[in-house]
Order: sequence, then structure tokens, then C-alpha cells
Amino acid sequence: MEFRVKALGLIHTDHATKEHAPIQGAFRPDALGTVEVFPEFAEGLQDIELFSHLYLFYHFDRAEPGELVRHPFLDDTPHGIFAMRHPCRPNSIGITVVRLLGRQENLLTVSGIDVLDGTPLLDIKPYVPRFDCHPEASEGWFAGKKEREKPANRE
Amino acid sequence: MEFRVKALGLIHTDHATKEHAPIQGAFRPDALGTVEVFPEFAEGLQDIELFSHLYLFYHFDRAEPGELVRHPFLDDTPHGIFAMRHPCRPNSIGITVVRLLGRQENLLTVSGIDVLDGTPLLDIKPYVPRFDCHPEASEGWFAGKKEREKPANRE
Repeated sequence: MEFRVKALGLIHTDHATKEHAPIQGAFRPDALGTVEVFPEFAEGLQDIELFSHLYLFYHFDRAEPGELVRHPFLDDTPHGIFAMRHPCRPNSIGITVVRLLGRQENLLTVSGIDVLDGTPLLDIKPYVPRFDCHPEASEGWFAGKKEREKPANRE
Repeated sequence: MEFRVKALGLIHTDHATKEHAPIQGAFRPDALGTVEVFPEFAEGLQDIELFSHLYLFYHFDRAEPGELVRHPFLDDTPHGIFAMRHPCRPNSIGITVVRLLGRQENLLTVSGIDVLDGTPLLDIKPYVPRFDCHPEASEGWFAGKKEREKPANRE
């Protein structure tokens, strides 16, 4: 059971290297980026400016699938890959929630972006708080973990 | 720019047909399901029970990519595909947030699930409210839209 996924655009950010990319967009709400949707898909952006927040789906194109139990960036205890957001996953799909600041044709200006410059875009979905906001959710092992430098050799 | 995505498991629900599947999991918080992770990936579930809510990534395996501007289920005005959560997308990837009720080895019992029975699982990520909960987000065109029967011919 396999299927093919294709890039629908590219995400442009100031994060040129993994070392400089934030661990989560929520840690850098001011980080700006541009989402370029390829012209053949730009029609699908109609009415996107009605939304303040978007999910971006992207390809972890510079991460390889790896061990199923590993050290995350934010903890020194290993966890299963499905209990963390690490990029080295069996399927190399990432998501991030960004704020939509504006649109010019096929270009979206967003903030709070954590992905590497040049990351292939796979999808955009509107973030709808009624469906997606669960303030009662537990933090799991993330509880109390603050942003820090990415430890070496975690990929 | 393409890559291959594979099923890591199967999602079992009571939603046998599209007509009976809820439009969003949030509309059916009591809908139960079982996430079966294939044994070769089960090690990646370590510590997942620390989390109360999970993102499930799945393959819209019974939806074909289609028109980029179309009618969603919840509105009678057409919108761009990136401004809606419709299954007929350029890349057939869906997400849903579910509540994790329990785990038995490679089987997760979840609630609030909206996907069709037998849907291929692509990934599981922990839902972390610090990263994922944005109560200030706008509802866009979803504002005031309540659950309803899926109108005919919307796929």
C-alpha cells in the first residue's frame, strides 16, 4: 500500500540549515516565511485569506527515516517516533501551524514558521479552532520542556 | 519532486461508507475507532500513552484529486481546496485530531474519529497544545456552519 506525493510549491524561510531552524514554530512567532504555490495549483487558494491560521504540510526532504525509538531535540530520554515530532519518520511528512499575514496571488506571507528554506509544500489546510484547538490536551513528555539549542547527533 | 508514502497501519471505525462518516471528528466526540499499527512499526509507539490527544495522518484512499475550486460539505458557496478540508485534494493526505483512550501493544483505542473504516494510516504525531492550540484563530467561512447531512454530488 503505497502512493505518490508531489510538491505543490516551495516554502521560503530564513532557516538555511537544520542548526538554525527552530524546533517548533511556536518558539519563534516572529519568524517570517513565504509559501509559494506553483501556478498550476494557485486557483486552490481562493478564499484562503478568510483564515488567520493555516496548517502547512511539507516534505522533510533533508531527513531520512531512521530508528523508531530515539532522542528528540527537547528531551534527553528516548521516546517512540510516534510520541514525538522528530523529522526522521517512516513517512517524511511534517506539519506546522502558521499565521497567515497576507497573500499576493500565489504567494502567502506567513509567520511562526519553523521549516527549512526550500522545503517542498505538500498541502495547505485551514486551521479551524472548533476542530483543531484542544486546550485540555496533555503535554505528555513536552511538559516543562523549553526551547534550547538542538543537541548534536540527534538526527 | 515526488516521493513515496506507505501505509504504517490501518484505522478501523464504524464508518463503512462516506455517507455515514462524520464531516469532522469534532462533530462526533463519542465515535470510537482502533488504530492498528503494523508490527514492524509498533516500537515507535513507546510512550505514546503519555498523550491524551494525537494527530492521525491518513490516506484518503477512496477520494480522487479533483477540481481546485469546489463546494465543501459544510457550505453552499465554492471555495479553493486549500481553504477547505475536503478529501479530494492534489495530495490525498488527511489529518484528524483524536483522543487516545488506551493502548494494547500495537492497537490504540481512540475517540472522535471521522475516517472511513479501513483507512491506511500514514503517521501519528502527539498533539501538543503549546504548539497546536490557537484559540485566537479565525473560523473563516466555517463560522456558524453546523453539522449537516453531506449534500449529494460533492465529491
